[in-house]
Amino acid sequence: MTIKAVVFDAYGTLYDIQSVAAITEETFPGYGEIVTQIWRIKQLEYTWLRSLMRRYEDMSVITRDSLVYTLNVVGLKHDNADFERIMDKYLHLDLYPDAMAALTAMKDRKLAILSNGSTEMLNALVHNSGLDRVLDATISIDSRKIFKPAPDAYTLIESRLGVAPAEVLFVSSNPWDACGAKAFGLNVAWIERVTPDAMALACVNSDLIAPLTLYKAIRTQMDELGVAPDHRVHALSELPRLVAAL
Amino acid sequence: MTIKAVVFDAYGTLYDIQSVAAITEETFPGYGEIVTQIWRIKQLEYTWLRSLMRRYEDMSVITRDSLVYTLNVVGLKHDNADFERIMDKYLHLDLYPDAMAALTAMKDRKLAILSNGSTEMLNALVHNSGLDRVLDATISIDSRKIFKPAPDAYTLIESRLGVAPAEVLFVSSNPWDACGAKAFGLNVAWIERVTPDAMALACVNSDLIAPLTLYKAIRTQMDELGVAPDHRVHALSELPRLVAAL
Repeated sequence: MTIKAVVFDAYGTLYDIQSVAAITEETFPGYGEIVTQIWRIKQLEYTWLRSLMRRYEDMSVITRDSLVYTLNVVGLKHDNADFERIMDKYLHLDLYPDAMAALTAMKDRKLAILSNGSTEMLNALVHNSGLDRVLDATISIDSRKIFKPAPDAYTLIESRLGVAPAEVLFVSSNPWDACGAKAFGLNVAWIERVTPDAMALACVNSDLIAPLTLYKAIRTQMDELGVAPDHRVHALSELPRLVAAL
Repeated sequence: MTIKAVVFDAYGTLYDIQSVAAITEETFPGYGEIVTQIWRIKQLEYTWLRSLMRRYEDMSVITRDSLVYTLNVVGLKHDNADFERIMDKYLHLDLYPDAMAALTAMKDRKLAILSNGSTEMLNALVHNSGLDRVLDATISIDSRKIFKPAPDAYTLIESRLGVAPAEVLFVSSNPWDACGAKAFGLNVAWIERVTPDAMALACVNSDLIAPLTLYKAIRTQMDELGVAPDHRVHALSELPRLVAAL
């Protein structure tokens, strides 16, 4: 049994961040999708920019700042209650439907989350979704004050779980995170979530593609960063079989 | 005369990176705009991600990798000649029309570029556009092997020009770059290029906005990164008067 721990990214991997689109759409009819996409782009950018600038603020601050930015750029008037209702959804994101069963099936290994989320956000999320019943640890990069994909963030797995990188399978659907973990030296399974949109894209050649569809695709297609994940799966439900073979 | 050197970002500040849209449109009719936008998003992401991953490759590699990614995600078939013709445009970007006159008017200060571009790319660009006649230095972050907005990149101004941060005015139209320079301790003028698109945006409230317009706006609206530039101008042509007053 080479793999002693399976460690998961949280946002986009176990939890469906696109599930905020329903609440943004309800609050700003017609704008739910565009707000969700820009918010995510800016949230990610700010984690990387603040890391490089050495001006760390935790993910709860960055998530608020990027929502402020997004509502401004789209020109959406809102009150505090609107803002807080959307923010609150980040503590109650939907688990992917196959998450609980997949994790339960791998209980013979250590199971953990390593996320860019703040300790407080992650604890709320894991508790609200019931995942605390199957996880051995929920690790925030907070204590390192630098976000993934910086190597320092991934060192937390060994220091918190006592498992060496060669004995860890790291699971992420975020291409940049899968690349960062691989560059650091972990074994990596990338979850390529092929959405109906993305499948449609593959068939298009002469028609114009809706930009919004493309901007979703740029979060799901593997990046060109000079490293490649070891394994590629399409859903969390494929992991127990993969892990059993490792 | 507090300000002894005026230092410019290159891409998007002195040189119009949107000028690649004409060649991408010519090569892929109907797709010029979307290719240009995604290419830029990914080019920027890769500079930040590789910096954090400590897997530096210079901007010429990143610009190629991000173009490969973009053509794949949009599903555009192409041959080598198409690819190289687009890449070549990056060495022949258009200067903003007011660039040469603005720089010439400030020749009583040291004038330089500090850019994420590779030494080779920048030298070609500066030579092809004739800017080498007015610049005292063209500084690539190459030697530091980390991209802006990392503080290490901005230290090159003092080490190459011998001018202390307090005596430098740094000029960028890129919000993240203006914030990074300010966080480092430079005086910063941010060029807010208000395009007709962006002005239209400001008036829209109830209509749906084209996502493509928005994705241009997210490169031009000031970011929420906890710092603010000292000065805000709308064109390079406003700089000589600003500098004369400093």
